[in-house]
Amino acid sequence: MTNWNATRDQATLNVRSAVARSDSSWAEIAEQLDRPLLWTIAALLGSHPVPAELAEKAGELLDLDEDTVLALQEQPYRIAGDSLKDDPTIYRFYELLAVYGPALKEAIHEEFGDGIMSAINCNVELTRREDPDGDRVRVIIDGKFLKYQW
Amino acid sequence: MTNWNATRDQATLNVRSAVARSDSSWAEIAEQLDRPLLWTIAALLGSHPVPAELAEKAGELLDLDEDTVLALQEQPYRIAGDSLKDDPTIYRFYELLAVYGPALKEAIHEEFGDGIMSAINCNVELTRREDPDGDRVRVIIDGKFLKYQW
Amino acid sequence: MTNWNATRDQATLNVRSAVARSDSSWAEIAEQLDRPLLWTIAALLGSHPVPAELAEKAGELLDLDEDTVLALQEQPYRIAGDSLKDDPTIYRFYELLAVYGPALKEAIHEEFGDGIMSAINCNVELTRREDPDGDRVRVIIDGKFLKYQW
Amino acid sequence: MTNWNATRDQATLNVRSAVARSDSSWAEIAEQLDRPLLWTIAALLGSHPVPAELAEKAGELLDLDEDTVLALQEQPYRIAGDSLKDDPTIYRFYELLAVYGPALKEAIHEEFGDGIMSAINCNVELTRREDPDGDRVRVIIDGKFLKYQW
Amino acid sequence: MTNWNATRDQATLNVRSAVARSDSSWAEIAEQLDRPLLWTIAALLGSHPVPAELAEKAGELLDLDEDTVLALQEQPYRIAGDSLKDDPTIYRFYELLAVYGPALKEAIHEEFGDGIMSAINCNVELTRREDPDGDRVRVIIDGKFLKYQW
Amino acid sequence: MTNWNATRDQATLNVRSAVARSDSSWAEIAEQLDRPLLWTIAALLGSHPVPAELAEKAGELLDLDEDTVLALQEQPYRIAGDSLKDDPTIYRFYELLAVYGPALKEAIHEEFGDGIMSAINCNVELTRREDPDGDRVRVIIDGKFLKYQW
Amino acid sequence: MTNWNATRDQATLNVRSAVARSDSSWAEIAEQLDRPLLWTIAALLGSHPVPAELAEKAGELLDLDEDTVLALQEQPYRIAGDSLKDDPTIYRFYELLAVYGPALKEAIHEEFGDGIMSAINCNVELTRREDPDGDRVRVIIDGKFLKYQW
Amino acid sequence: MTNWNATRDQATLNVRSAVARSDSSWAEIAEQLDRPLLWTIAALLGSHPVPAELAEKAGELLDLDEDTVLALQEQPYRIAGDSLKDDPTIYRFYELLAVYGPALKEAIHEEFGDGIMSAINCNVELTRREDPDGDRVRVIIDGKFLKYQW
Amino acid sequence: MTNWNATRDQATLNVRSAVARSDSSWAEIAEQLDRPLLWTIAALLGSHPVPAELAEKAGELLDLDEDTVLALQEQPYRIAGDSLKDDPTIYRFYELLAVYGPALKEAIHEEFGDGIMSAINCNVELTRREDPDGDRVRVIIDGKFLKYQW
Amino acid sequence: MTNWNATRDQATLNVRSAVARSDSSWAEIAEQLDRPLLWTIAALLGSHPVPAELAEKAGELLDLDEDTVLALQEQPYRIAGDSLKDDPTIYRFYELLAVYGPALKEAIHEEFGDGIMSAINCNVELTRREDPDGDRVRVIIDGKFLKYQW
Repeated sequence: MTNWNATRDQATLNVRSAVARSDSSWAEIAEQLDRPLLWTIAALLGSHPVPAELAEKAGELLDLDEDTVLALQEQPYRIAGDSLKDDPTIYRFYELLAVYGPALKEAIHEEFGDGIMSAINCNVELTRREDPDGDRVRVIIDGKFLKYQW
Repeated sequence: MTNWNATRDQATLNVRSAVARSDSSWAEIAEQLDRPLLWTIAALLGSHPVPAELAEKAGELLDLDEDTVLALQEQPYRIAGDSLKDDPTIYRFYELLAVYGPALKEAIHEEFGDGIMSAINCNVELTRREDPDGDRVRVIIDGKFLKYQW
Repeated sequence: MTNWNATRDQATLNVRSAVARSDSSWAEIAEQLDRPLLWTIAALLGSHPVPAELAEKAGELLDLDEDTVLALQEQPYRIAGDSLKDDPTIYRFYELLAVYGPALKEAIHEEFGDGIMSAINCNVELTRREDPDGDRVRVIIDGKFLKYQW
Repeated sequence: MTNWNATRDQATLNVRSAVARSDSSWAEIAEQLDRPLLWTIAALLGSHPVPAELAEKAGELLDLDEDTVLALQEQPYRIAGDSLKDDPTIYRFYELLAVYGPALKEAIHEEFGDGIMSAINCNVELTRREDPDGDRVRVIIDGKFLKYQW
Repeated sequence: MTNWNATRDQATLNVRSAVARSDSSWAEIAEQLDRPLLWTIAALLGSHPVPAELAEKAGELLDLDEDTVLALQEQPYRIAGDSLKDDPTIYRFYELLAVYGPALKEAIHEEFGDGIMSAINCNVELTRREDPDGDRVRVIIDGKFLKYQW
Repeated sequence: MTNWNATRDQATLNVRSAVARSDSSWAEIAEQLDRPLLWTIAALLGSHPVPAELAEKAGELLDLDEDTVLALQEQPYRIAGDSLKDDPTIYRFYELLAVYGPALKEAIHEEFGDGIMSAINCNVELTRREDPDGDRVRVIIDGKFLKYQW
Repeated sequence: MTNWNATRDQATLNVRSAVARSDSSWAEIAEQLDRPLLWTIAALLGSHPVPAELAEKAGELLDLDEDTVLALQEQPYRIAGDSLKDDPTIYRFYELLAVYGPALKEAIHEEFGDGIMSAINCNVELTRREDPDGDRVRVIIDGKFLKYQW
Repeated sequence: MTNWNATRDQATLNVRSAVARSDSSWAEIAEQLDRPLLWTIAALLGSHPVPAELAEKAGELLDLDEDTVLALQEQPYRIAGDSLKDDPTIYRFYELLAVYGPALKEAIHEEFGDGIMSAINCNVELTRREDPDGDRVRVIIDGKFLKYQW
Repeated sequence: MTNWNATRDQATLNVRSAVARSDSSWAEIAEQLDRPLLWTIAALLGSHPVPAELAEKAGELLDLDEDTVLALQEQPYRIAGDSLKDDPTIYRFYELLAVYGPALKEAIHEEFGDGIMSAINCNVELTRREDPDGDRVRVIIDGKFLKYQW
Repeated sequence: MTNWNATRDQATLNVRSAVARSDSSWAEIAEQLDRPLLWTIAALLGSHPVPAELAEKAGELLDLDEDTVLALQEQPYRIAGDSLKDDPTIYRFYELLAVYGPALKEAIHEEFGDGIMSAINCNVELTRREDPDGDRVRVIIDGKFLKYQW
């Protein structure tokens, strides 16, 4: 089958190796690129096309070759595949959807009417929240409500 | 195959009908039960056992029969099934995981080390955020970080 | 497993029987309700909540019982299931997506940039186009472009 | 398993790289080949055999090697695979079929009788429709009606 | 999930019981209806809408109740499901497609060019062919060639 | 996972390239080998072991290397995989089985009793049938009836 | 979806209850019917049509109602479904096929040439073989070899 | 995904090529190794670790390189994958399980009580049984009965 | 499809209701039956046939009707289905197998040689282990090692 | 699709080869690293990031190259894939979950209330337990109970 993402997949592997080799954390890279943390990781790992200027800056920071820098700017096929669901860190989010999916749906419709939260005009943020019983992961999803309309 | 959730599934249908018939919104029910909104919807629709006192209060509010009030207190099998994923309102959250799953994983490990955000010691909140370009759905997930440890 | 759509599914069966029994075509029903054809069919068969006034009007036209009229107003779970894909009339549309999916994607990104055609702020129209070599089915999908944005 | 499309898949990757490297847009390539936009993209990316003359012209425009030019003329196996369904831009079309599939079927049968819209004698067009509330993607599918007949 | 075929499925069960109770073979029923054998079986078991006159004639022959006679005239959803593939008598045909599928495709394209054999403008015939080494099942599929065309 | 067909898969790719490069059609190759058309295509593309003499003759006709000639004689694993089902030319045959599968089964049992049409002692033929309304693909399947017996 | 086996499935449940209530073992029933053990169980549980005389005899032995006796004579759809594979007693046979499947295939082809062991002209026998280290289940499958032939 | 069987898979391909090149049949190889036929094929093709002495003897017989001889001694992951099920020669055994699975289960429980036939302490034998109506494949499975016990 | 477990599934529902209504905990029931805790729950919920004496005792303890008491003694089909895997409490065990499966396999083979831990001659125990950092669930699986042998 | 584990997968293959070549058993390696047996195997085969000091020590013991030593320290994607479930040694554990899953769930909730056994704060131990009827595999899972809480 055609591997529609061949060049971006290779770029993803190159970026991951480069980050592992570098002294920079994702947080620092995001700061250097002046972009939000999760957007930065997602974009450099293949979920968003990276604007040329940012791709070049990332190339300098991570010492990426030119092909990789170009590949980062390509429009990706966002096809993550189901196997990621098995990873325990990622699975917990799927489990939340299984447990709270209908409740999210009911709450959205009650508050906003018939429609959806956009996953396109949307941003996601992950922070640490300190807590005496153990620090907590705090994820904020903020998406525009879109009303069903003809 | 054994329907492990037979009594709770029936209770879920009864609750939904009762809410539709009643004048109460989920928000009002949650307020009456003095519990968070999403917890209230999820619990009454089968994702959590409802403590006896709350089940009875819900029974009064929604005019539920006694079997339903008892069923709400049962320990559920939390098996939502894959078909819910197809609903557009719910699908957008799955799509976010497909697009941002690896980024969430990288960010968690960079900030906290090897481990997961608990989906058990965790709460989820949904609110409306006003915005001149169209109001936004804001979902906050807040779960305890759990470190892999032997 | 919870049948989240129990009441709307029953309403769908009732509507289909009523349409079969009635002398009205879908086109006439749509005209009576003053709504587009595909919206009307989709809504009465379970894909959209039907506003109270229209539900009552449909109830009169099709001689539906009161429970059905109420059920039509419920917010549906839009979970069609995969089995519909096998129907030859419906399958042809899936085949078009398999054959032209990547071309649609490339054309959208080239013309609009990174984003999607909304399936929510969207309408679909089906008409007959006369042709000497055999009349043609003409389907027009018209959805708002949504740009990926944080 | 036999990769029935081995040579065309390679050609698809080569074409995508060549388009990325070139200064031509798909729209310009289509114009040069004097073929409709979506047919051009689909054919060059593996969904249709490309007539020899067009393949050679495309080869010149995009500076493709001879093997690729020959491969474009091969009869393809049109087997896109399910993973494309996950891409958000493509998924929206699948969602429309899930939501409006039965309505499309009912409307076709009411208007034309028992049969299908051909996906073979069929063309698809994608244009931008300007709109003050945000420009819209307009997709027109136009296929010959085929009646079930023995 | 909505059972789109509820009335026709019930009719199928009724027809099968009626045929089992009756003294008529499918061959005799087909002859009485003056329709080809496989069309007759397929239509009465739910794969084709049965014209009113034929449905009534079948109703008389098989002593079907009025609801069944009406249901036979409904437009079916042709959704057989995958489980039939497991039946050994039916499986042999699937196996032939697995073994000879690519050869059928190559032969069609070599003889007719790019296109398909229609499964809509198509008929299927099954006869016994006597043979000293054991009689043979002879299936003839005859479908119009449809050329890919825009 | 072990690729049980590694050498035959490679031979299949080599044969397809060789046929594309050669001036011979499948029909001519079949004539030269003095074997039926579909058997010839199927066998050379991996569905049957090719007798040594025929393999060598095919090797000469198509200028195949020695390894390929040897591989053609190997006993294949006939494991086509499900992805071929998506190809529109092949899919139409699957659709016929979905629509007429139960009818084929009923007709076989009525005519022959309990048993199957063999897919092993069986041959398949594809020809063009001229027709003023458009030429037709005619496929004849002829398999020995096998009775269930202990 | 049509339940093609509705009457035989009901008969299977009735037979199982009747055997449980009766004092007869399957071995005794097989002896009374003068048929092999596994054939008898398989046929009475829905895998074979039961000849009228035997069905009536079984009806007397097990005190079955008339509908069940008639249903036993129907031609079944042999569609066991995948869920049986999970039963540990049945799974061990599937595991043997996973572990020894290729070896069975190689041995058949080496000894008999290209073809298969028939599953239709075939019988299966299960006996106890005494052994000082623990008695053993002995299953003998005996099927006619069928050569691939055109 | 990790290919847990990487070295054994390579060894399997090497052994198959070597057997094809050699003048030895599996029967002769089994005789030389003084092991049962099916065990020998299964073990050399990756289903059992081969004891060092036998692996070396097989290496001499088939002229295998040292890496292959070592790989044969490795403990395999016995993960055949589902695709083998499609091969017609192997499928017939799966079909027998679908048709006779419940009968095998009932017969085992009636004769032995609650438990299973071991697939570990088990051997499988395949022989030719001559028959005037056509020779037959005879497979004998002989496994220790294991009682469910705590 | 035949519901092979129809009577035991009904018994499972009855037992669960009875336990919910009763004042007895599973621990007390197990003690009364003088059987291990997990065996008792598993057997009463359908995973083991319950010996007549114990079934009757359970019937008295839980006030079960006679049909249920008889059904408990039936040999079950142990076919749990995949949906249970989604329940978070049960999923954690599946996750452990995904994370530690290969390690368990390597450790078994290193310590015991080629073979398996029996799941038939095996018992499972669950206890609470007190711990100042939070009490722990302790599950002990104890199964006989079975060596691969012919 | 992106192979998120590319470097760790390669490291796993290298470690397995190195262990096979070395004279060390997993037990000895674990002892040298002063870590529990199953943790050691799991971590070196890709289920846990290995702390730098231990990775280097393992590198010396097994004569691993530097890239492998670095790869061992990477955070893995724990995505084992479903194919491992087919291996008989691993399958027995899955079978235990199918047979005892609901019983484990009931016992956990009765003893601890609503929540789960953590698979993160959890350790697993495998030992040999001598037994005159055949030695036994003893697996102890010990995980912290986590209560559902908001």
